[in-house]
Amino acid sequence: MKIGVLGTGTVGNAIGSKLIQLEHEVKMGSRTADNEKAAEWVLNNGALASQGTFADAASAGEIIFNCTLGGVSLEVMQMAGADNLKGKIIIDISNPLDFSKGFPPTLYPDLSNTTSVGEEIQRQYPTTKVVKTLNTVNAMLMVNPVALADADHSMFLCGNDADAKNTVKDILQKWFGWKDVIDLGDISNARGIEMILPLWVRLYGSLQHPNFNFKIVR
Amino acid sequence: MKIGVLGTGTVGNAIGSKLIQLEHEVKMGSRTADNEKAAEWVLNNGALASQGTFADAASAGEIIFNCTLGGVSLEVMQMAGADNLKGKIIIDISNPLDFSKGFPPTLYPDLSNTTSVGEEIQRQYPTTKVVKTLNTVNAMLMVNPVALADADHSMFLCGNDADAKNTVKDILQKWFGWKDVIDLGDISNARGIEMILPLWVRLYGSLQHPNFNFKIVR
Repeated sequence: MKIGVLGTGTVGNAIGSKLIQLEHEVKMGSRTADNEKAAEWVLNNGALASQGTFADAASAGEIIFNCTLGGVSLEVMQMAGADNLKGKIIIDISNPLDFSKGFPPTLYPDLSNTTSVGEEIQRQYPTTKVVKTLNTVNAMLMVNPVALADADHSMFLCGNDADAKNTVKDILQKWFGWKDVIDLGDISNARGIEMILPLWVRLYGSLQHPNFNFKIVR
Repeated sequence: MKIGVLGTGTVGNAIGSKLIQLEHEVKMGSRTADNEKAAEWVLNNGALASQGTFADAASAGEIIFNCTLGGVSLEVMQMAGADNLKGKIIIDISNPLDFSKGFPPTLYPDLSNTTSVGEEIQRQYPTTKVVKTLNTVNAMLMVNPVALADADHSMFLCGNDADAKNTVKDILQKWFGWKDVIDLGDISNARGIEMILPLWVRLYGSLQHPNFNFKIVR
C-alpha cells in the first residue's frame, strides 16, 4: 500500500520505518521537499522510502498518518491540501500539547475539552475519514506494543466512519500487534483520548521512563 | 478515628459506610443539618454514624473526605469553614465535571488544564493537606477495589505533604484494599488525574458499565 506520513519527528520516524518493514511504500512529508530529517530517514529505510512536501506525501498516500504536533496539525493539513486529502483515511496521532510554559505541558484550550485536534481535522475536511488512535503511547510502543507485557494493555480508537475504523483496527492489530483495541464511537471521543495526555506526561515524570501504557481492566 | 464526610451522594455514601464498617466514627455533612439523604444514611449505618452541616462534619473530623461535586467543592469548603479545616488532611475525590450541556460532560475551564479542584482547595486553605485520589473510579470500586480483577489495577495520588500522603496511602491500601497506588508528586498533578474523567465517562458509555479501571502497565 502507498502511505503518506506527515511529520519528521520521533512519531513519524517510528511509524514510517515500521510501515517500510511491512513492505509498504512510504512518503514522509514536511514543510520543505528537502527536509534534512526526512532525508536521513529515507537514507536509512531503503528503496520503499521517499520524501516530499506535506502535499506530496498526502497526494501519494492512499492512507495518511498525521504524526505532527497537535498545535500545528491544522496548518499542516492546509499545506497538505484539501484535494490531496479528499475521501482518504487520516490516522490522527497528534496531541494538542502546549510546551510554551515548560514541562509538564498544558493543552491548547481551543483544541481541548469542548473539541479536539481529531474533531477539528474532521470538521475542516468533511470528506476525509479521521480515525484518532495511537496518541496515548510513546512512539516505540505504537508500532511494537508486544514489547510491553506482551501487549496486555489497551489502545483507544474513534472516528465517524465504520469501514475506516475497521481498516485502522486491522492496521493496529495485524500490522502493529495491538491486542486490545477499544472503539469509543464517533470522532467527538477524540477529546477524551487527547485529554489523558496531561496524566501521561506526569506518569512519565513519576515512572522515569516512557515505556508504559494504560490497560482498561473490566 | 473521627472522620468527616462532605457530601451525601453516591460517593459520600460509599465512603461513609465503608468507614463505619471499619469502626470509625463518621459525620456526614451537607448544606443543612437535617438533610434527608444524610438522615437515611445515618439510619442505615448505626451508632457510629451521625449527620450535620458541612461545618459540623469538618469540625468533627480528624480527616475529611471531600465527596462533593467539583463545581461546588470550593463553596462547600467555605461553608465548612477555614477554622474547621485548619491543618487537617482533606482527601479530595471531586471532579470538575460540567453536565450542564448533557452527557458526556466537559470540564469547567476555570477548574482544569492550568489548575484543578485539588489545587484550588490547597491554594485557598494553605494549612490543610490536600491529597487528591479515588476520583478516577466509581464509588463501589473506591472502597472495594478487589471486586475487580482482585485489585490488579491502579490508583493515583498526589499532594504536597509527604506524611499526609503516607497516611492516605495506608487508608487506600490497608483500609480499602488498593494494591497499586502511584504517587505522582505534588498537588499540581491533580489536574492530570482530573483530566482523565472525559475518557472515563466515554469508556463508561462504550463498556456500558462503570465497573472498570485503569491499570498502568509498566
